[in-house]
Amino acid sequence: MIIEEKNRECIEACLQCMNACNYCYVSSLKEYDLAMLKECIRIDRECADVCAFAAEALSRDTAFASEICELCAKVCDACAEECDKHKHEHCKQCAEACRRCAKICREMSKAA
Amino acid sequence: MIIEEKNRECIEACLQCMNACNYCYVSSLKEYDLAMLKECIRIDRECADVCAFAAEALSRDTAFASEICELCAKVCDACAEECDKHKHEHCKQCAEACRRCAKICREMSKAA
Amino acid sequence: MIIEEKNRECIEACLQCMNACNYCYVSSLKEYDLAMLKECIRIDRECADVCAFAAEALSRDTAFASEICELCAKVCDACAEECDKHKHEHCKQCAEACRRCAKICREMSKAA
Amino acid sequence: MIIEEKNRECIEACLQCMNACNYCYVSSLKEYDLAMLKECIRIDRECADVCAFAAEALSRDTAFASEICELCAKVCDACAEECDKHKHEHCKQCAEACRRCAKICREMSKAA
Repeated sequence: MIIEEKNRECIEACLQCMNACNYCYVSSLKEYDLAMLKECIRIDRECADVCAFAAEALSRDTAFASEICELCAKVCDACAEECDKHKHEHCKQCAEACRRCAKICREMSKAA
Repeated sequence: MIIEEKNRECIEACLQCMNACNYCYVSSLKEYDLAMLKECIRIDRECADVCAFAAEALSRDTAFASEICELCAKVCDACAEECDKHKHEHCKQCAEACRRCAKICREMSKAA
Repeated sequence: MIIEEKNRECIEACLQCMNACNYCYVSSLKEYDLAMLKECIRIDRECADVCAFAAEALSRDTAFASEICELCAKVCDACAEECDKHKHEHCKQCAEACRRCAKICREMSKAA
Repeated sequence: MIIEEKNRECIEACLQCMNACNYCYVSSLKEYDLAMLKECIRIDRECADVCAFAAEALSRDTAFASEICELCAKVCDACAEECDKHKHEHCKQCAEACRRCAKICREMSKAA
């Protein structure tokens, strides 16, 4: 895949996290215990959107990689924290993707 | 990676195409023959943006996959056509990613 | 405001619709009858996202105004239809914004 | 217009800035002195994209308004600084919209 080589790992982590968050969002809206998941739905969308934004910004080699990745890491942390409260498989997978993305974004943020 | 299984191939094609278009966009802005590449720059951004939009829509299992993928395929066609006019390696790679994405989007559009 | 004059009315209709959809989305997530509103939540996000995409595309004078506005009009129709099922004030306002946006997008789509 | 009342002024400033940046981007790509404007083109897109992202995030009442508006203000500053180097009317209007947006985003960032 042809992308800015130095940004590749972080782009891919953001895109995986976007997918995990959107999958959790869609799945949560189908769950029986919907009321318990409303904060999860909300932060899933938030996190998917910021990850999508960060991935596209990194793929056009933004001059603001450090600031954008720092923002992305914060939202990922919040999403992981919320998803950790729930037992659903999609929440567990989402929390894991968020933690991984937050870690890689923080490294990117320091390096950029 | 946890995404909607049926949409996976198309999401990945869109994201690869977004990366290729943005790489071509960034690279074109650095070229000496900038004036010849201005239409390329413009359509690269257009195509990257529609691919990013399509990928996120598919990852949240949009009910409009057919229409969105049809739009994406048209923009990819136009971007491939423009990039084919230029000799730069980034243009060739972009044209190839666009053609692949257009093909997969058309299949998705019919299946959705 | 400095924008592409010919696209101005349509950009503004899309942005108003984005706002109405996101307001309805946020408000729906706070309602007691959350389970009845889950399709509304889903289509609100869908419609807000496509309106935001259309508005930005029009503001950079996209060559695909016709196709993008046609897509936007379809999603607006679906969102208006869903919101019409509910009695909440935010749903009524959202349905109205969606119908207005769909109408203006269809005019834009024919003219473009 | 129905939007989150407390975010209204900032959403509108972001959207006006998005429009000004995209207008400057499109106009710059048509200028004779294209080579001198390549950094302007690049930062115009960057700024339009972050403004669009901020506006949509504020319209869904993001919990990260402070961080997002701070990021947006930084990118607006950089875009205004670049546009100030050029004599084109679209650059002057863009710089003005960026400065206004940066100011309102900073106020929002402190208040949020």
